[in-house]
Amino acid sequence: MMTAPKIAIIMGSTSDWPTMQHAADVLDALDVAYDATVISAHRTPDRLVEFSKGAEAAGFHVVIAGAGGAAHLPGMCAAMTQLPVLGVPVESAALSGMDSLLSIAQMPGGIPVGTLAIGKAGAKNAGLMAAAILALNDPDLAERLRAWRAAQTDSVGTDPRGTK
Amino acid sequence: MMTAPKIAIIMGSTSDWPTMQHAADVLDALDVAYDATVISAHRTPDRLVEFSKGAEAAGFHVVIAGAGGAAHLPGMCAAMTQLPVLGVPVESAALSGMDSLLSIAQMPGGIPVGTLAIGKAGAKNAGLMAAAILALNDPDLAERLRAWRAAQTDSVGTDPRGTK
Amino acid sequence: MMTAPKIAIIMGSTSDWPTMQHAADVLDALDVAYDATVISAHRTPDRLVEFSKGAEAAGFHVVIAGAGGAAHLPGMCAAMTQLPVLGVPVESAALSGMDSLLSIAQMPGGIPVGTLAIGKAGAKNAGLMAAAILALNDPDLAERLRAWRAAQTDSVGTDPRGTK
Amino acid sequence: MMTAPKIAIIMGSTSDWPTMQHAADVLDALDVAYDATVISAHRTPDRLVEFSKGAEAAGFHVVIAGAGGAAHLPGMCAAMTQLPVLGVPVESAALSGMDSLLSIAQMPGGIPVGTLAIGKAGAKNAGLMAAAILALNDPDLAERLRAWRAAQTDSVGTDPRGTK
Amino acid sequence: MMTAPKIAIIMGSTSDWPTMQHAADVLDALDVAYDATVISAHRTPDRLVEFSKGAEAAGFHVVIAGAGGAAHLPGMCAAMTQLPVLGVPVESAALSGMDSLLSIAQMPGGIPVGTLAIGKAGAKNAGLMAAAILALNDPDLAERLRAWRAAQTDSVGTDPRGTK
Amino acid sequence: MMTAPKIAIIMGSTSDWPTMQHAADVLDALDVAYDATVISAHRTPDRLVEFSKGAEAAGFHVVIAGAGGAAHLPGMCAAMTQLPVLGVPVESAALSGMDSLLSIAQMPGGIPVGTLAIGKAGAKNAGLMAAAILALNDPDLAERLRAWRAAQTDSVGTDPRGTK
Amino acid sequence: MMTAPKIAIIMGSTSDWPTMQHAADVLDALDVAYDATVISAHRTPDRLVEFSKGAEAAGFHVVIAGAGGAAHLPGMCAAMTQLPVLGVPVESAALSGMDSLLSIAQMPGGIPVGTLAIGKAGAKNAGLMAAAILALNDPDLAERLRAWRAAQTDSVGTDPRGTK
Amino acid sequence: MMTAPKIAIIMGSTSDWPTMQHAADVLDALDVAYDATVISAHRTPDRLVEFSKGAEAAGFHVVIAGAGGAAHLPGMCAAMTQLPVLGVPVESAALSGMDSLLSIAQMPGGIPVGTLAIGKAGAKNAGLMAAAILALNDPDLAERLRAWRAAQTDSVGTDPRGTK
Repeated sequence: MMTAPKIAIIMGSTSDWPTMQHAADVLDALDVAYDATVISAHRTPDRLVEFSKGAEAAGFHVVIAGAGGAAHLPGMCAAMTQLPVLGVPVESAALSGMDSLLSIAQMPGGIPVGTLAIGKAGAKNAGLMAAAILALNDPDLAERLRAWRAAQTDSVGTDPRGTK
Repeated sequence: MMTAPKIAIIMGSTSDWPTMQHAADVLDALDVAYDATVISAHRTPDRLVEFSKGAEAAGFHVVIAGAGGAAHLPGMCAAMTQLPVLGVPVESAALSGMDSLLSIAQMPGGIPVGTLAIGKAGAKNAGLMAAAILALNDPDLAERLRAWRAAQTDSVGTDPRGTK
Repeated sequence: MMTAPKIAIIMGSTSDWPTMQHAADVLDALDVAYDATVISAHRTPDRLVEFSKGAEAAGFHVVIAGAGGAAHLPGMCAAMTQLPVLGVPVESAALSGMDSLLSIAQMPGGIPVGTLAIGKAGAKNAGLMAAAILALNDPDLAERLRAWRAAQTDSVGTDPRGTK
Repeated sequence: MMTAPKIAIIMGSTSDWPTMQHAADVLDALDVAYDATVISAHRTPDRLVEFSKGAEAAGFHVVIAGAGGAAHLPGMCAAMTQLPVLGVPVESAALSGMDSLLSIAQMPGGIPVGTLAIGKAGAKNAGLMAAAILALNDPDLAERLRAWRAAQTDSVGTDPRGTK
Repeated sequence: MMTAPKIAIIMGSTSDWPTMQHAADVLDALDVAYDATVISAHRTPDRLVEFSKGAEAAGFHVVIAGAGGAAHLPGMCAAMTQLPVLGVPVESAALSGMDSLLSIAQMPGGIPVGTLAIGKAGAKNAGLMAAAILALNDPDLAERLRAWRAAQTDSVGTDPRGTK
Repeated sequence: MMTAPKIAIIMGSTSDWPTMQHAADVLDALDVAYDATVISAHRTPDRLVEFSKGAEAAGFHVVIAGAGGAAHLPGMCAAMTQLPVLGVPVESAALSGMDSLLSIAQMPGGIPVGTLAIGKAGAKNAGLMAAAILALNDPDLAERLRAWRAAQTDSVGTDPRGTK
Repeated sequence: MMTAPKIAIIMGSTSDWPTMQHAADVLDALDVAYDATVISAHRTPDRLVEFSKGAEAAGFHVVIAGAGGAAHLPGMCAAMTQLPVLGVPVESAALSGMDSLLSIAQMPGGIPVGTLAIGKAGAKNAGLMAAAILALNDPDLAERLRAWRAAQTDSVGTDPRGTK
Repeated sequence: MMTAPKIAIIMGSTSDWPTMQHAADVLDALDVAYDATVISAHRTPDRLVEFSKGAEAAGFHVVIAGAGGAAHLPGMCAAMTQLPVLGVPVESAALSGMDSLLSIAQMPGGIPVGTLAIGKAGAKNAGLMAAAILALNDPDLAERLRAWRAAQTDSVGTDPRGTK
């Protein structure tokens, strides 16, 4: 099911998709619509400005932005919209995403970015957090999220030697 | 003006208040009500469980949680509520908050915490992000936030030698 | 041989077992009984509370807790039991366990966790340390541990080009 | 009250005492006897060997060892006794105790050291953990520890603006 | 002497001036004109876009950009001009500029920023490098730079106990 | 096309070529001539001195220097020429280039090196920055660089699931 | 040729030999005799004491000690001999040798260890430095070392695309 | 007493003297002559070349080289002499000497530098190690060093509350 999406997933490069699709997957599982687009802060700055300034008018409620290395996409997007922006530090080649994490998390006072973990876990959690934000005013989604989390809890077996 | 608060600010110790009050200050400036409480994940785990499980029923929409060192408060709160939880890594004595940052940001897939910067800037931004989340369904707050951000932009002079 | 176990090995996920089984292996070698269970601080917080509060009454003397990333399991368990808790930082995907180590070791004053090394060596040593604690009041185990350590010493050849 | 001590607190230098006295203080509060001695792994290796090999015969049950920088004291002591050894990374001048932490925590499989946090919090927790180990076979101490922890919990106020 | 400046010094905040003035000072010493302006990537993104897109037309040849924490100013400016951009990582509160350094240096392939050292030394060197670039086509400046460097060499005494 | 080169690419070892060729490739794409030479600061210090002192007279305008580990080549070259020197931290075996980065970027005030990112991205960007410097006085190259960058922008698709 | 060796190469485990053999190889190339032995500071502390206290009387002039993780072997050996001790940080599993480096290099004032680079390069350089120390009083070795270094210099080709 | 010195202490700046004088002090205590000179690898490269190439002929046996930040002095000196070079990482402003440590220790295979600890402890130990090297062929110095170390051992009191 696809309705007009309230969640935008943006990322700096197609090479970020194997990470960022984990955000998409969990939103799919929760039946939450989203747009996924490549926007490079550095290589397509105009696209970044246009998207960020227009995000609120376009009906988005939350932006999930993933980038690696000197990861400027989440923070620069947040500079041009007051929508909540969630940042996903993509694991980088040399420094394993520590550069991505610091580039996203260490924003100066005044422009917030909610930063998730490095890599796939962070992307998945960005999807969950975006859903949690929407769920504040969407009781049906709140129930779906509640069910998803209950199922997650139920799925945790007790035997460490069990099947994964 | 104080209405029933939708935002909870929790922190592990009174010693975190000089950091976390920056969240409170910006919420005051935006005329957003909040509750501020000390909850130590380690020294008062029952209080943590009670708060986290009851946060949604208590009417909160967003939890801001600050802690330092092995900072478990934000993640454990997030484990027991599906409300959006924003984590503020408080600057720690020996490692300057790097331990706090990693303890909060590196959550496993399934339980999200939106992490802000280490210290005061992070606390201020947690307040701003919480407001941005509420503003999604509160047009008046959205306007106040827009005005606050515009004023922030206007306050940036161009002369680096000018008064701060 | 399996008697009522005094040692609990808990871990956040079945994916931690390849690490944590090194604790089990050394306890097997020392003929020390243990229980091994998956308890996710984040995905099964109720299980964590129930286990931790009941650990002493259940007859456990030592808890070995392994977790990776924002590793909250050992510290949160220690918050709810006064039994000695040994923490094993499991090697994490992006940051090689540095996040796990800091999340476990940097506990605030008041709630102790004895932290071992990152990964398999740490798990093995958690088993050894748990045995050493039990051995304080179990002369037979003390002898078995003494023999195990003596055998370890004897097994160290002098020729670096020798068989491993 | 001072009985024959079961806990040894050793440290590499008198300059470690301002850190390590936090272990002593909490043991005093719990009415647990201890010996506190300076033993430098590097400057007094004979003293280290003599102490470590004789610790068990001397009646000690737990060794708390604090050191900074290339902190070899806890690990080398653990190499020569099978008593539980708790390591406290003392905050170092240049690297804030990160060197101390890694030098103590990253022991190879076979010789365990239970590592606490860097600095005063770690020293306090070493004292608490040592007491917890003794309490396994000392019901009176177990009660005192229980009372100490309950008092700690009760001392956590809820108002972040309150007195510290 | 002040001619139409070929060098722009931009920085994220007036609080960066105590660092960035070291770039200005060395340009003054070399008799090289410059403009110094506050441009916050996050708080004044429009100013950033306007400046960066217009920098070449405004006659600038080199941009020196200083920022701290999640330091996006140099990289985002470089995204919108093909002029050489030199980045100065300003020392940040919690992480001593390591976050600034990684946020500036770890740019993805395609958009270069020449990064200098953290803090005052880096600002001074940004000034020197900007002058060196201009000197490639300004023989007089090349001579002044040569003299400045020779004087620097001459100023290095040999006696470590001498006056600084 | 090869004219007398204004750009020198030097590196500490032939093993740096897989990294540094990315500088060469982008210069080729921009039709900018260059010389590529192995100069080891440590193993061929005379070659380093001779090259550095003669670089200006040889007609070079920019030096690109790549090295890994204790990477002294860029800084030592910069000590002996006032030409702009761009440093590329080559990814090192154990520390992934963090040592290379700090060894190149953290130059003391007085001798500048413009540092690029660790590894291939940094090498590519060193080539681009060298071209940008030459382009300041070479309108044709400026146009080629402009076209290259425009093509880069155009090549960024919007669909993250698209072909790379 | 093998004479009574003046150089001892010790290491914590046979698993360190693939690293430490690079010390042996360069000593072989320089025709310098050595003994290579496994001595585990943690698993064979008596062997460590015996070796270290007897090293001078045994005729050794330099000790090369390699170890990984909480690498205590070099520092503890240096505590028990006044011979020059060279430490080689062996690359560790989780932290890539950063723990080894800090455990070896950050010795307190009073007991020196000369630390080389992490891994094979460090082992090779330990061999070279040991030879350099012996060469101070062995003119023939000094000549062989001079020739080795000259050959090393000669072996550095200038074409980065050349054969290695 | 001052004879023709066999030890050279060089450092990058007079500002390194408060660190490096600890090398001088311990050599004074051992009655070992030395020369102390400022040589900046970056600001006085000619002085560096002249010193390094002439060090052996000048009668030096050991070079102690201290530097901070991108600390190239020890490694570049070692590139131009086969004398043993001991490197002292001086504590740097922003990164507390971690940059200095990596710049000195992580030398490539072929050119060794024996690195000591960051700061004063490292300088003192460089002096001790230089003396230990000379003592290999100077029985009187060997005795003085033995006495110095014995006195050091004797000076370590056992009471942590005692005078420092």
